[in-house]
Amino acid sequence: MAIDSEMLVNAARSVRTNAHARYSNYFVGAAILDDSGNIHVGCNVENSSFSETSCAEANAIGAMVSSGSDKIVAIAIVGGLGDKGANTMFENAGKIGTCTPCGGCRQRILEFADESTQIMLVDDEGEVQLFGIDDLLPLAFRVE
Amino acid sequence: MAIDSEMLVNAARSVRTNAHARYSNYFVGAAILDDSGNIHVGCNVENSSFSETSCAEANAIGAMVSSGSDKIVAIAIVGGLGDKGANTMFENAGKIGTCTPCGGCRQRILEFADESTQIMLVDDEGEVQLFGIDDLLPLAFRVE
Amino acid sequence: MAIDSEMLVNAARSVRTNAHARYSNYFVGAAILDDSGNIHVGCNVENSSFSETSCAEANAIGAMVSSGSDKIVAIAIVGGLGDKGANTMFENAGKIGTCTPCGGCRQRILEFADESTQIMLVDDEGEVQLFGIDDLLPLAFRVE
Amino acid sequence: MAIDSEMLVNAARSVRTNAHARYSNYFVGAAILDDSGNIHVGCNVENSSFSETSCAEANAIGAMVSSGSDKIVAIAIVGGLGDKGANTMFENAGKIGTCTPCGGCRQRILEFADESTQIMLVDDEGEVQLFGIDDLLPLAFRVE
Repeated sequence: MAIDSEMLVNAARSVRTNAHARYSNYFVGAAILDDSGNIHVGCNVENSSFSETSCAEANAIGAMVSSGSDKIVAIAIVGGLGDKGANTMFENAGKIGTCTPCGGCRQRILEFADESTQIMLVDDEGEVQLFGIDDLLPLAFRVE
Repeated sequence: MAIDSEMLVNAARSVRTNAHARYSNYFVGAAILDDSGNIHVGCNVENSSFSETSCAEANAIGAMVSSGSDKIVAIAIVGGLGDKGANTMFENAGKIGTCTPCGGCRQRILEFADESTQIMLVDDEGEVQLFGIDDLLPLAFRVE
Repeated sequence: MAIDSEMLVNAARSVRTNAHARYSNYFVGAAILDDSGNIHVGCNVENSSFSETSCAEANAIGAMVSSGSDKIVAIAIVGGLGDKGANTMFENAGKIGTCTPCGGCRQRILEFADESTQIMLVDDEGEVQLFGIDDLLPLAFRVE
Repeated sequence: MAIDSEMLVNAARSVRTNAHARYSNYFVGAAILDDSGNIHVGCNVENSSFSETSCAEANAIGAMVSSGSDKIVAIAIVGGLGDKGANTMFENAGKIGTCTPCGGCRQRILEFADESTQIMLVDDEGEVQLFGIDDLLPLAFRVE
């Protein structure tokens, strides 16, 4: 399947603005292309009890599975601080690296990925970089 | 806003069939009515690392927030064992009570609820029962 | 078993100071008395990916189970903002209620509780209040 | 600091037997050596609501932080199916790979790791293999 990375990244950028990032002011968006050619998006949804937070990637996967699909062909992820004027430890903490999926989301992507799945991240210059799940989660814990 | 509980419960029943419940064989669906009158659905998405599982309610909330809404007017939740022929500890464990939201999902609902939010559960006779968030999560941990 | 609530609350207060609450500046401690008369403590451990955070109660339960016990006779929970000079959304957000367990932790307590389990919270006047799990998680989702 | 990998692996093996793995029958143990030379252990604690599960590594980290330490010098992790006679999807699912930490736990380890932290896994022949956090979580999401 031909994958339009620009379109997928833009879908992630668009949903990112809806993030409920009240506690970190860190906004993330994710967009998945499934094997039927459909797009599913998600943003992060924080909770006052941090452990109940849902990541953007988890919500995009939730949308995909809820629609009846179970195969991630590609997933684009974008993130960064918001411009809400919040003052959080995230902003005080100094440098945040490029937005890559957290380890938990790598595990969640793995559940619906195979070796051909493309993970699209955006570097500091705005260029899209492609990774496989084995690049980001080597020696993964898995049940066949 | 007039709420069609039958419609909302049916939306939850429908999405429930898409659950990724490979490890428990317990299928859950959730459907949210937001304050714009839109419906958002989600099913549970399990993971081989159980801690990375997303509940149905979390995924429905993720869909709502990703769409730009942040107010749950009503949420319907339905759940039960699947018919996949799986043989899991859930099935071996004996009685499972009526499907009510887990504590984590009560906390997630709270983040987008107020005193008028209706939580719709289905009892053993198939009747819809209505609850408020204070009924299910009294003395909640919250940040105003 | 006679329960010394003052001792248990003090154990929770003591471990609370060790919390890794870098992102919220909200410090929580929990102390469990198990059915062998042993005490197990835990504080919250936050993570830069909020969804990977562990609550204080979860860590106290983890300590209990790791030691070979599986029955919570009583659990004391204390929490509040730290004095680290941090400036977080939690502090900016206005009033935080009394520290009660989040919904997720109520579910975690349920797994090892019965009707006699005592949950000890501290109100604004510093008085210990006792609750049962059914008080805090009515109509719980459970597998018998 | 000289690290006795055999001792640390044995501590992980020992605590593993206490796992609350009722739903998966998959037992995991973890043991951490901190920078004061103390050992902290944890096993996995599952929950009927899978999303509220705590991994063994999370519980070992919880024990470490609760004790006042915040630096993982080394962590040993061992896992495998239990012998309880349970019949779970984990057992039905076919091959489970060597027990490596899930993505979520890699993120949790990262929070308290540096480039010298040693992650000790046990391969199919029972040999201890050493990894750094960058080996298992390359291009990690992090806040400095």
